[in-house]
Amino acid sequence: MNRQNLIQLIKKKQSFLCVGLDSDIDKIPAHLNYAEDPVFEFNRQIIDATLNYAVAYKPNLAFYESRGMEGFKSLHRTMEYLEKFTDQCFTIADAKRGDIGNTSTQYARAFFDKKNSGFDFDAVTVAPYMGEDSISPFLKFENKWVIVLALTSNKGANDFQIREDKNNQTLFEQVLRTSAQWGTPQNLMYVIGATRAEMLGKVREIVPDHFLLVPGVGAQGGSLSEVAEFGLNADCGLLVNASRSILFSSDGKDFAGRAAAEAQKMQNEMAGLLSLRGVI
Amino acid sequence: MNRQNLIQLIKKKQSFLCVGLDSDIDKIPAHLNYAEDPVFEFNRQIIDATLNYAVAYKPNLAFYESRGMEGFKSLHRTMEYLEKFTDQCFTIADAKRGDIGNTSTQYARAFFDKKNSGFDFDAVTVAPYMGEDSISPFLKFENKWVIVLALTSNKGANDFQIREDKNNQTLFEQVLRTSAQWGTPQNLMYVIGATRAEMLGKVREIVPDHFLLVPGVGAQGGSLSEVAEFGLNADCGLLVNASRSILFSSDGKDFAGRAAAEAQKMQNEMAGLLSLRGVI
Repeated sequence: MNRQNLIQLIKKKQSFLCVGLDSDIDKIPAHLNYAEDPVFEFNRQIIDATLNYAVAYKPNLAFYESRGMEGFKSLHRTMEYLEKFTDQCFTIADAKRGDIGNTSTQYARAFFDKKNSGFDFDAVTVAPYMGEDSISPFLKFENKWVIVLALTSNKGANDFQIREDKNNQTLFEQVLRTSAQWGTPQNLMYVIGATRAEMLGKVREIVPDHFLLVPGVGAQGGSLSEVAEFGLNADCGLLVNASRSILFSSDGKDFAGRAAAEAQKMQNEMAGLLSLRGVI
Repeated sequence: MNRQNLIQLIKKKQSFLCVGLDSDIDKIPAHLNYAEDPVFEFNRQIIDATLNYAVAYKPNLAFYESRGMEGFKSLHRTMEYLEKFTDQCFTIADAKRGDIGNTSTQYARAFFDKKNSGFDFDAVTVAPYMGEDSISPFLKFENKWVIVLALTSNKGANDFQIREDKNNQTLFEQVLRTSAQWGTPQNLMYVIGATRAEMLGKVREIVPDHFLLVPGVGAQGGSLSEVAEFGLNADCGLLVNASRSILFSSDGKDFAGRAAAEAQKMQNEMAGLLSLRGVI
């Protein structure tokens, strides 16, 4: 999905909600155990329940890889199901990959090259530590996106990301400035944690046009209105992710209905924020 | 495998060679296409041919993930095969993972928790960008190892890793100093590229006791004797990886014999270097 289509989708749904499919098999409702693949069944019902309110889905690879072959099958089934809605949602492999050039080319195939891997994600998250040749192979795929970690939502972000150099520039700022030269706002996004909304102003000075994928609203404590205040641009420019707060708002038979209600609540708030800023 | 056993293995084989299983399906000999799983058949023959000379095997996950379900099966078969030699080699998942705490816990399960995932690697490579809580979940598994990226062998290492702060400390030095507090030389190693052997002296000042996993000898141009000069410590303290130079030294029916010869050549040189330094 290209940038223009993503923006149209956001305007149509009046939402910039991304639902994180961190589908922990130990947390999904027990009544789903009847299914051949409970995690896929869970994802299918979550997708059906939230598709009107969400513009993106983001499977977190770790929750599938931890279950080995079975988890891999759940992920494949989920992505196959999402293909039915290919114009109705953007898909992100939250994989945090990155390696030397020839290896990153293989990772890019793993997520973007359906003929080889079976997967056809729109975007993949990557870690910037290994620099340009770890990221540029992903940028060679047409209408695909790289989402570079810049400032993450976790406590460990303090260890290296906000470390300042001689010019008082933090590492995450250098990652933004440097990597912005490797791609364009048409194929590059950044992860900026909602738990640091006050930093979003600084981020927007460096990358005014890029989309930002913002985790940390919900279970991690970030505020949607603060994120919107500092992060929205004329094209929206935000995808705000919620995972646990939507997926696990109930562990009973009403889980999908409750997920829909949670997603709708966020969509409502997002519609208001988009309208306030004149995006819609 | 714990540190003591790894050191014994190195002394017994007089080798600190790690064979990187970057088993690119487009590069393996065409005559293997008869096999149900050519990549597994290739790996099996490479392992048989090099087991006398190598102390470790390092599947590069990207080359399996790029082939989707088929690649995943090849990797499972390879690790199942390596279980036969569990006391004879150390196994490394070269995966470069790292995410917020609850997600890194799932990644640790993916590589270390055989009951859940089917995999029982000794070690996994991780990226440090997201800080402590992205790495500490891997350190909770007994007799398992985390190998943190510090200074990598690729050109992109120049983008962020050698960036200096106000105290003239580079990012990779800060990663070494900070992360060394999260684990011990019993469960933590570092990736240091052989293409920067001159930096190994500086690395050894910061982490004299830790094992270093050193890629970049062979196809990437690093020198084994330089790596040994600056990197060896009293317990050896090195695992030097070679991938392409061993795997693809021939694309004919003699590939396994040629791989054995390449591995033996490196083991010979390593035995000399270990002896010179009094490790054996």
